[in-house]
Amino acid sequence: MPAIDGNRLLRDLYAAREIGRYKTGVHRPTFSPEDVQARHWLAARLTEARLEASIDGIGNVYGRDPAPGRKLLMGSHMETQNHAGWLDGAMGVLYGLEVARTLGRGIDVAAWADEEGHFGSFLGSRSFCGLLTEQEIDVCGNRETGVLLRDALRNAGFSGRPRQKIDTARYRGYLEAHIEQGADLEDHRLRLGIVTAIVGSRRFRIQFKGQQNHAGTTRMSVRKDAGVALVKLVAAIEERFPTIANPRTVWTTGDIRLDPGAPSIVPGGAELVFQFRDTDQATLDALDAALHELVAEAANGPCEVTVANRSSTAPSAMDPAFQGALEGAARRHAPGLYQPMPSGAGHDAQILSQVLPSAMLFVPSIGGISHHYTENTRDEDIVLGCQVFADAAAAILAEA
Amino acid sequence: MPAIDGNRLLRDLYAAREIGRYKTGVHRPTFSPEDVQARHWLAARLTEARLEASIDGIGNVYGRDPAPGRKLLMGSHMETQNHAGWLDGAMGVLYGLEVARTLGRGIDVAAWADEEGHFGSFLGSRSFCGLLTEQEIDVCGNRETGVLLRDALRNAGFSGRPRQKIDTARYRGYLEAHIEQGADLEDHRLRLGIVTAIVGSRRFRIQFKGQQNHAGTTRMSVRKDAGVALVKLVAAIEERFPTIANPRTVWTTGDIRLDPGAPSIVPGGAELVFQFRDTDQATLDALDAALHELVAEAANGPCEVTVANRSSTAPSAMDPAFQGALEGAARRHAPGLYQPMPSGAGHDAQILSQVLPSAMLFVPSIGGISHHYTENTRDEDIVLGCQVFADAAAAILAEA
Repeated sequence: MPAIDGNRLLRDLYAAREIGRYKTGVHRPTFSPEDVQARHWLAARLTEARLEASIDGIGNVYGRDPAPGRKLLMGSHMETQNHAGWLDGAMGVLYGLEVARTLGRGIDVAAWADEEGHFGSFLGSRSFCGLLTEQEIDVCGNRETGVLLRDALRNAGFSGRPRQKIDTARYRGYLEAHIEQGADLEDHRLRLGIVTAIVGSRRFRIQFKGQQNHAGTTRMSVRKDAGVALVKLVAAIEERFPTIANPRTVWTTGDIRLDPGAPSIVPGGAELVFQFRDTDQATLDALDAALHELVAEAANGPCEVTVANRSSTAPSAMDPAFQGALEGAARRHAPGLYQPMPSGAGHDAQILSQVLPSAMLFVPSIGGISHHYTENTRDEDIVLGCQVFADAAAAILAEA
Repeated sequence: MPAIDGNRLLRDLYAAREIGRYKTGVHRPTFSPEDVQARHWLAARLTEARLEASIDGIGNVYGRDPAPGRKLLMGSHMETQNHAGWLDGAMGVLYGLEVARTLGRGIDVAAWADEEGHFGSFLGSRSFCGLLTEQEIDVCGNRETGVLLRDALRNAGFSGRPRQKIDTARYRGYLEAHIEQGADLEDHRLRLGIVTAIVGSRRFRIQFKGQQNHAGTTRMSVRKDAGVALVKLVAAIEERFPTIANPRTVWTTGDIRLDPGAPSIVPGGAELVFQFRDTDQATLDALDAALHELVAEAANGPCEVTVANRSSTAPSAMDPAFQGALEGAARRHAPGLYQPMPSGAGHDAQILSQVLPSAMLFVPSIGGISHHYTENTRDEDIVLGCQVFADAAAAILAEA
């Protein structure tokens, strides 16, 4: 099996880290000047690697092997969360670059725009897969600044370019590498995770309407306290969900707000954001039913309750043959130091898996930290992961 | 018994409403230009009523009967909450003015500065009772703008004036009238409430420290979710407190905040503000003990919990003889349409009661609304309350 050049890979990663560097991490939100610079930098690296590089109308950077024959597509994303880590995204893209250089042929490389969701949901990979309309692009805006996606694309210089669309016949499949963003590998002293499936998730906003009142003069018996109603629902969820959940199911109340939120006022309004994730569709459905049951019970109390589903994604199973190729390579290079595992976070692979056989490889996150500038992975683990990735790619292409 | 002039009282109340009028209510925060204007306006009215009027170094407006003999002190406050009602405070002050005019002698009238707490806690009445130090005045600032109390007093023109201090030998006691700020009188179709005691209150800030993590990749079993810990404590309070409470005990979680409060992040921090109120000291102590027990139980979970007592006030019993005088007057003017009741809100009378026999009379709040510009009381109820107040004052002075 061909050996990757670990030092070359690390040099590229270090160079990418300088573009928008923040402390030991990177601040490179989608279509910021630094992000645009990183896309051009990547296109130049792809060109050096003898790929046909382009940046398309949604900002996807795409490096195409000009040789004939079926290809394996590899990629991830270049932008980061705010003041976040240097590996989340960039590592997967530069694995693709390094594998393309190492194998010399058969690899296309992509950096999907806005996986981190500054403007929308998986805009780049959905665009490539034909799952993003012009109408959706029209209405997307930056979640913090409100700047329209159209304006951001114009400022970035990508306006008016065609959007690259997938030719599914060209590809054997899609491979993506990523940091784990959790501590499961580290906790089990493992060095590689072979993703079995990417979780599906359901997200909700639940609102309570009661009656705002003076906290000193309003008797308990006549109160319609929206905050108490909210607390009782969350407590009920925390009791019920463990009876339905799998060992890997996760659910989270990420935010709670009381209105008006003053010490001496009985809250007249309250809302929370809630989500749950699992790799099993039936479990997601059972949790969904339980949530709605609990909401219906809450509505029997003194407050009105409304629940709005903010988004749903289905679980994405990874391709068994690709998992086998990754496992074979992991067994050769790190025997006993890898495990199959689900991905609790979302990735572009969940979009690509809708149109191509897809798989993912994880490397450990030190301390499980991600979305923070202290995010890190040991250099040896970064290099090991890329070697395993290259071996698996070679094996898949050999079978194609 | 002497009859008050209801139309004169209402004219004064309407005139006061014009100073800082906001929709059907008033916006007259402490030491705003409108508030200062209202204090001068009141001083002029007190002078017209042949009282010796002054405004002192903390902004208290004070009208002193120059005749010899023991007096009854009457008052409340002139400033309002932001965009609040026309009667909360002003009604009690102008009852004092009307009773002074009606009885012709024996009544001193005060408008205590900043009962509404824009700069501190009961600053005016505490100053008058000798319970406010210069050091505390030095550090008080506006809760919204941060403007120092010293600067606000200078801008108002009250700097450098002496602060009036109570001569307890001068007074038979203190009477205060106020809107109920609740719907208890209205719900029972009553027109007058004779306050038995002003509740004591305890206020707390409770903070939870867990560990911030990715909501997709962090297993439930290893989470330290500060938000869930908070919810479980509040739910436990809601179960335990009813087993200890009196029918009139109230407790309120007024605000909840999760940190960082994002949909896909397990909250690493959480805090709430909590308060409870009761007229019975032993009940307050029992609730306090229960709260600390529940916090200690919560601390056995995965998160650190700290509880800080933000303030404590003791219950203030109203003088039984004064309650009797109010009840006698109520029986004459509104037989069957009054009730004894606690005050769930704080009032200057809780300060004055520390140095003088004190009592309070409530009139109904339409819809129980207060601290809002729609706050209101029927004119007939306003006039009836003042007549009862005058009769009770005459009876108390006759016994002095």
